[in-house]
Amino acid sequence: MARELVLIGIGAGNTDWVTQAAVKAIQRLDVLFVVVKEKDLDEFVEVRRRIVAEHRDRPLRTVELHDPPRPWRSTPDYPAAVRTWRTQRLAQWGQAVAAELGEGQTGGFLVWGDPSLYESTLAIVKQLVAAAETEISVQVIPGISSVMALAAAHQIPLNRQGRAVVIEPARLLAEGMPEGTDDVVAMLDGHQTFASIDPEGLDIYWGAYLGSPDQILVHGDLATVRQEILEVRAAAVDRKGWIFDTYLIRRR
Amino acid sequence: MARELVLIGIGAGNTDWVTQAAVKAIQRLDVLFVVVKEKDLDEFVEVRRRIVAEHRDRPLRTVELHDPPRPWRSTPDYPAAVRTWRTQRLAQWGQAVAAELGEGQTGGFLVWGDPSLYESTLAIVKQLVAAAETEISVQVIPGISSVMALAAAHQIPLNRQGRAVVIEPARLLAEGMPEGTDDVVAMLDGHQTFASIDPEGLDIYWGAYLGSPDQILVHGDLATVRQEILEVRAAAVDRKGWIFDTYLIRRR
Repeated sequence: MARELVLIGIGAGNTDWVTQAAVKAIQRLDVLFVVVKEKDLDEFVEVRRRIVAEHRDRPLRTVELHDPPRPWRSTPDYPAAVRTWRTQRLAQWGQAVAAELGEGQTGGFLVWGDPSLYESTLAIVKQLVAAAETEISVQVIPGISSVMALAAAHQIPLNRQGRAVVIEPARLLAEGMPEGTDDVVAMLDGHQTFASIDPEGLDIYWGAYLGSPDQILVHGDLATVRQEILEVRAAAVDRKGWIFDTYLIRRR
Repeated sequence: MARELVLIGIGAGNTDWVTQAAVKAIQRLDVLFVVVKEKDLDEFVEVRRRIVAEHRDRPLRTVELHDPPRPWRSTPDYPAAVRTWRTQRLAQWGQAVAAELGEGQTGGFLVWGDPSLYESTLAIVKQLVAAAETEISVQVIPGISSVMALAAAHQIPLNRQGRAVVIEPARLLAEGMPEGTDDVVAMLDGHQTFASIDPEGLDIYWGAYLGSPDQILVHGDLATVRQEILEVRAAAVDRKGWIFDTYLIRRR
């Protein structure tokens, strides 16, 4: 009787984006592992709670996985400190899974969006399974990524016919549009990179809180709308205390 | 009472990848528009039929949209012939929607995978709505793309930490890995491009019939496994008469 871990993509923001496959996986779980971040957003915890409550008719045992405190950026030898932090995290998760996932049992992780895009849970789980003393099989259930959510909300194709789409961290976009590419989705933008790149010939399709009742969309010529986005974004951060946003930059 | 068209992403291959949002949309449809291609695959028609049958408890009126015959590649002035073909298609679809979508009604399209990635339905519907004599609102429901399905099946992240992912037609990959990119998902490969590019330093994660009971996965050093993929692929085409495959090329 093998042990199993299932990474369940639950979609990015709308509880209705949960798939039938995710629902079936939630229903057969013996234990749910919940990663507790240092600063977790109540709304994210609440979305996960609602999804489980809606689709599960018997109680679900929950085990919290606590990440160790992340090193400060100012730590001497920061890369080494991050490596140590990763090792500690892996050890903590591994111990919890070894203790809580019994023979023949299935444990689950609810993963925001899709488990394959800018999401670390899968990499950690694969390492944890490789290091485990007992055999643990893994299953991954894809989910609606914020990238797809952005395109759906704006009702646009991500790609132009016969052309490429680049998905990249905003940090890379800061260096300019990638050579030969006209469509770039920027992820993880903590610095409003869209407002600092050369806007010449570019449109933006921006979205925040995608799929949720708070969803905000702005699109247009980047030079024209970037100030509006900065203002809308700042007001939203003021109002809610946090923001998740993403955007497509499209060369006209 | 406005008319409405809903593009419903149904996921790429597994009927369990349908989302709650897609199910709710299917349940409230007044009419389903089914695009009938010249050569449509019975299995695709069957997947759509099963999804509707499973999630709908009352009959669903279905209207077939027939694409005009596509011009041959050998047609003189092929680009002009394609433009004419597109105009005819738009006119045919537009007439069918005008005739069959009544006031206050909601019409739906079931879109394979996700409506925003290498999928033409959304672009046509937007044109059709812009040209319509009555007001028609549009809604897009995101779905599980074959790109996410590929990553989930191989249990890999698409991106490396802090790095970009490129999704592009295989035709572009034929020109080589894009500058500065280590992870490329190739779509729409009719020519087994993976077998003709320089394999030095590259891994491949290949999948066919993703999410279906026929799913086939191969991964490894591109130089080592590309012949195996060609053989597995040819045998599958022989057996089933068609194949849908996609793959990630990853620089080690």
